[in-house]
Amino acid sequence: MDKSNKPILVFQTDFTYKEGAVCAMYGVVKSVDRELEIFDGTHEIPQYDIWSASYRLLQSVPFWPKGTIFVSVVDPGVGTSRRACVAKTANGYYIVTPDNGSLTHIKEEFGITEVRQIDETVNRLRSTRGVAVFHGRDLFGYTAARLASGIIDYEGVGPSYPVDEIIELPILQPCIEEGHVRGIFEIDDPNFGNLWSNIPLEDFNKAGFSYGDYVHATILHGNIPVFEQDILFHQSFGFAEKGAPMLYNNEMMKLAIAVTQGSFEEQYGVSFGPEWILDIVKS
Amino acid sequence: MDKSNKPILVFQTDFTYKEGAVCAMYGVVKSVDRELEIFDGTHEIPQYDIWSASYRLLQSVPFWPKGTIFVSVVDPGVGTSRRACVAKTANGYYIVTPDNGSLTHIKEEFGITEVRQIDETVNRLRSTRGVAVFHGRDLFGYTAARLASGIIDYEGVGPSYPVDEIIELPILQPCIEEGHVRGIFEIDDPNFGNLWSNIPLEDFNKAGFSYGDYVHATILHGNIPVFEQDILFHQSFGFAEKGAPMLYNNEMMKLAIAVTQGSFEEQYGVSFGPEWILDIVKS
Amino acid sequence: MDKSNKPILVFQTDFTYKEGAVCAMYGVVKSVDRELEIFDGTHEIPQYDIWSASYRLLQSVPFWPKGTIFVSVVDPGVGTSRRACVAKTANGYYIVTPDNGSLTHIKEEFGITEVRQIDETVNRLRSTRGVAVFHGRDLFGYTAARLASGIIDYEGVGPSYPVDEIIELPILQPCIEEGHVRGIFEIDDPNFGNLWSNIPLEDFNKAGFSYGDYVHATILHGNIPVFEQDILFHQSFGFAEKGAPMLYNNEMMKLAIAVTQGSFEEQYGVSFGPEWILDIVKS
Repeated sequence: MDKSNKPILVFQTDFTYKEGAVCAMYGVVKSVDRELEIFDGTHEIPQYDIWSASYRLLQSVPFWPKGTIFVSVVDPGVGTSRRACVAKTANGYYIVTPDNGSLTHIKEEFGITEVRQIDETVNRLRSTRGVAVFHGRDLFGYTAARLASGIIDYEGVGPSYPVDEIIELPILQPCIEEGHVRGIFEIDDPNFGNLWSNIPLEDFNKAGFSYGDYVHATILHGNIPVFEQDILFHQSFGFAEKGAPMLYNNEMMKLAIAVTQGSFEEQYGVSFGPEWILDIVKS
Repeated sequence: MDKSNKPILVFQTDFTYKEGAVCAMYGVVKSVDRELEIFDGTHEIPQYDIWSASYRLLQSVPFWPKGTIFVSVVDPGVGTSRRACVAKTANGYYIVTPDNGSLTHIKEEFGITEVRQIDETVNRLRSTRGVAVFHGRDLFGYTAARLASGIIDYEGVGPSYPVDEIIELPILQPCIEEGHVRGIFEIDDPNFGNLWSNIPLEDFNKAGFSYGDYVHATILHGNIPVFEQDILFHQSFGFAEKGAPMLYNNEMMKLAIAVTQGSFEEQYGVSFGPEWILDIVKS
Repeated sequence: MDKSNKPILVFQTDFTYKEGAVCAMYGVVKSVDRELEIFDGTHEIPQYDIWSASYRLLQSVPFWPKGTIFVSVVDPGVGTSRRACVAKTANGYYIVTPDNGSLTHIKEEFGITEVRQIDETVNRLRSTRGVAVFHGRDLFGYTAARLASGIIDYEGVGPSYPVDEIIELPILQPCIEEGHVRGIFEIDDPNFGNLWSNIPLEDFNKAGFSYGDYVHATILHGNIPVFEQDILFHQSFGFAEKGAPMLYNNEMMKLAIAVTQGSFEEQYGVSFGPEWILDIVKS
């Protein structure tokens, strides 16, 4: 079997590359099977931020070849009783992760057909048996490598458990009516300072809004308005003037807000989460 | 055809690894052709900084095997009328990029023999058709993968256009005379805080300066002197005392300024660009 | 010979990915031999921090397949008379590095059986001969690639020199007695803000401490106490309350201190080095 026939491994963690943890983890994978191909998803998920881990999987998983195995390790409960699992998604991927909410978006959007708890008596690196704080290296990476390599099949991960026992974080739905939509910012693009709402473009269009419209946008933090302006809605940043806030259709086909060549987050002190509400009416 | 016969893909962007964009982009590449080999050039180009994108290509491209395909996405005009292109360099590489100035240094230094505009009706990921803000994933990465894979040949990118229509940023030339040189800092090493001038070592030597000389260096911001000292010119940092400013020959064979085991940028408040002038006379 | 039969190359440096240096260095490797497989160990070693470079090798090397070639470039003395070398470790790896202390922990923990000075007349990239500041690209990366590729064998690196001439930084040993241990913090996890001592779990257990114990921990900076509390010792973070300091067994099987879901370093203003002392007695 040549390298191309074994699934790719994509890792995302909150470890960063500031020290040697990722390196040790990847060494374990290559020691299981030299042929395995590894990609960094990202190692810069904010620490302990399970919500972001879940969202970043949603953002990237469907673009990879079917069969790709994702390893997501944002794991504040490492070494405690939370389950370590491998989920099989309805659209053809595997996710190796602590079952702590990291599967929320993937389950909601694509569906999970089966989930198995990793059997530590079999699928755990033996040389580091006394260590309880680095399951990325000792359990998740190791198990993913064994699965990708064909040393174990999916059943070999460990016992399956009911899919409806998978831990899920609450996902809020937007309100859509003619000429008025209201949603939340559910994540950001921390590099460019854009904020991404949970309002699908399709629904926004159905509510009567089109590219080129100026719309009346209000952002509330709880009940307190922190931003209120008539701004442009268009398909990309370049249609607004540099420095101007605007609404656009983001890479997830959802409504997002940006400052052209600037940071909306910094400029207006807005962030994301259930308490950050975006309200739009026709202007 | 085995993996080694297909060109390597090297990506540089201003996306960072803070969220899932790079991961999604690479997934598209591997979905086009599982055999393709991908490298991070860097994803930490300062946001919207086309000049840096151009310079980083100059710094890295010639060290890669001929035929390597570079994808450079610093693209503040994404989704607007700026051209998306693939340039063929005179020294044997391809650069996939928005034609927005990112090709400046490569064109000046190595030459571009041909440039083609990416035909979006053919070379665009179809599943994300409504998205106008992520050409790294949907257009550049996808086209580069198709080219590397052999699905399209260079002509298959799209129609060629005149090389002299390529957008270029102005590059300034230093003034060299016996015992006196004047140039600008055209880029930095943001990690170590060194500043890199546009004065070639060869010209500096011709002007009469040699390793071991103490020279009188003045840095002006516009007309205002911000640094003026007699400092050592040598071949590497270790020849000056820790904490001392010095001139050296950098990895581009150009004159640069550093503080040994410190940051010149921070210590002296100096940056780069056409208004930052370095003037050197014999001391 | 297919790719899988050639050693993997793992790089760690203090270059960061902020500019094009890593990209150029990897291009050199792939230009030597297209088949070589490259991994980032980390490029975020703190600048000039040879101690951290040494520690990160200890942390990651043993998890990789035997024969893997590590390239470690934290090199404040680049271009001066410090030796450039390739060390062969007793546990089956090669380390390509400036001989400046970067081999300290590997030598202490695993042993080095042979060391050779890189012969620059043979193993140096010729096209960049005038450059003295970038041995990562021009010497270390290039030599490692030639060694991995089989162009040179280990003898072909250059002349061997006595292993006891390898530069070593001082490593301190902890004091262990019944009911009382004292060591130093020798490194941190800069991402999570945990501090890692030089006290092995095994010794801590022998001194009479067990998971679940509350112990009296004092941290001194020189002679000045900066932290003094009765805290939990357990196997992982999840056993303490969020925000509470705790002692745990880290991934190196040594005693470490953390704040659950917080940063001990930031919260208590503690760092690492010989002057940061951790003292533990039964409470």
